[in-house]
Amino acid sequence: MHIAITGAAGFLGQRLVKQLLARGELRQHPITRLTLIDQVEAPQPEAGNIAVTSMAMDITQPGALDSVFEQRPEVIYHLAAVVSSAAEADFDLGLRVNFDATRALLEACRKRELSDTRLIMASSVAAYGGDLPEVLDDMTALHPQNSYGAQKAMSELLVNDYSRRGLVDGLVLRLPTIVIRPGRPNAAASSFASSILREPLNGEEAICPVPVELPMFVMSPGKVVDALVHGAEVPGEALGAFRAFMLPGITITVAEMLEALRDAAGEKAFSLVRHEPDPQIESIVASWPARFNTAKATRLGFVGDENFKQIIDAFVTERA
Amino acid sequence: MHIAITGAAGFLGQRLVKQLLARGELRQHPITRLTLIDQVEAPQPEAGNIAVTSMAMDITQPGALDSVFEQRPEVIYHLAAVVSSAAEADFDLGLRVNFDATRALLEACRKRELSDTRLIMASSVAAYGGDLPEVLDDMTALHPQNSYGAQKAMSELLVNDYSRRGLVDGLVLRLPTIVIRPGRPNAAASSFASSILREPLNGEEAICPVPVELPMFVMSPGKVVDALVHGAEVPGEALGAFRAFMLPGITITVAEMLEALRDAAGEKAFSLVRHEPDPQIESIVASWPARFNTAKATRLGFVGDENFKQIIDAFVTERA
Repeated sequence: MHIAITGAAGFLGQRLVKQLLARGELRQHPITRLTLIDQVEAPQPEAGNIAVTSMAMDITQPGALDSVFEQRPEVIYHLAAVVSSAAEADFDLGLRVNFDATRALLEACRKRELSDTRLIMASSVAAYGGDLPEVLDDMTALHPQNSYGAQKAMSELLVNDYSRRGLVDGLVLRLPTIVIRPGRPNAAASSFASSILREPLNGEEAICPVPVELPMFVMSPGKVVDALVHGAEVPGEALGAFRAFMLPGITITVAEMLEALRDAAGEKAFSLVRHEPDPQIESIVASWPARFNTAKATRLGFVGDENFKQIIDAFVTERA
Repeated sequence: MHIAITGAAGFLGQRLVKQLLARGELRQHPITRLTLIDQVEAPQPEAGNIAVTSMAMDITQPGALDSVFEQRPEVIYHLAAVVSSAAEADFDLGLRVNFDATRALLEACRKRELSDTRLIMASSVAAYGGDLPEVLDDMTALHPQNSYGAQKAMSELLVNDYSRRGLVDGLVLRLPTIVIRPGRPNAAASSFASSILREPLNGEEAICPVPVELPMFVMSPGKVVDALVHGAEVPGEALGAFRAFMLPGITITVAEMLEALRDAAGEKAFSLVRHEPDPQIESIVASWPARFNTAKATRLGFVGDENFKQIIDAFVTERA
């Protein structure tokens, strides 16, 4: 079993690599080879008998993936992306990485006749937007209000059509907001959702820029990676007429997140969160839908977090 | 007022040209110039004071539209397309014409800073598919089950995002099945829907390949062209968060169409329709949705046919 991963140097990519190596098998076949692809060389972990190759390349360059796909990977994870704020700031870069690279990857699969290769692409809650219903479901239209979401939605259609034509065996998972991300705050509008938990759990101050009544749709890094692994194992026949859908997140308000922080780490941790409204961040985050009926993902065996306490506990355990 | 039309040699393009010349104005400005673009030179009609230029070009070639857009058209109709059966048979051709050409057109607008230019693109009922609800509405997801529909859905997202970014003032109209098309039957799966009316009205036999209970969603050529004209006049601010929506067609079964034929042209015409089931055509046409709540189009002032009798009467009058 040869697995290729784009965006392998990123936070999700690295975590996926770790989990695949720990499992040692996928689709009931021993993993023999991992090809890690990113703009920079992804760290190469200890891997025992598994041959791990790290390749630094620009996958937006024509033919870049040809040499990798010559090795006929049986599973491809396409995680490489320009995130929302960057895709909004640089339209051409976003189109090139979030859409053209997906198309190039699909074409490379077609050229190598990788029709049985399972391609798993990460999409996002940011693909939704506009005048949304109270609760979204698998038939809610994608009316993205940011270029990142538009580029992901276009890529979804392309993955679906290549799959329908039998050129690849594709699947797109729309990810909820990932909480708690490790590391430091970044420029993403959703960064605070990890910060207000991670920093206090580490004894540091954090700033909450949104009203605590704001609901969000979240999933832990562990469950997202579990979903990526499960995505390789769902039979293609089970995926139905459209191969992109939302993963089962948890709907939770910021206030409830902070209550869970207090329950887990006490009053002191809770008091480390300062409330400093930032209307710009609020307007972005408030536009993201927070309530979903994720019937399709659930029917296909994708599993979310049970509750927010579990998310906090997992972060604390992993940090230890 | 300078108007450019791609696909200008086609049936809809030609009809639109005729109507624009008859009006002489658009957006309350006199039309001074029409640029007709197609693979072949579109026929140049008598146009009085209006300067009409026909250009034969391949709009999928980089920079092809630059010379046209240098003339800063204030309204662009993008009707050029590879139809569904052809896009299914030749995947690359469909992607190139139905998607890449749309992108090239949007880029040409951006390059020339035509941010106030109203771009009107034709999309299709074929963009819908999969497990659809009984009645579709403006929030029903696009899960196309053919490459033509996928390419149109991708183009919709791009037109919307370029518009959201203020690079052009775009609008996409999803067209119902157009009935009664003039001319001869063609290879389109929906061809019969015009044939079973047009041929008997001309005293000729026609074949109905589908069960008469089948419902369809139809619009007359006249109302489609009216909608294209109205599409130039709707203010951008009124279009809301997503600039693609379905036009108000009529839901009608094939049996009801044939009854309307009998009412209009008598028993003899009715009896010219032979029923020869074709499972392949049935499976394609039956997958198209037939019931829509087109609230957005109606709110924006787009008007459909009042009833099917009107559609037949218009065809007979125009033929005369």
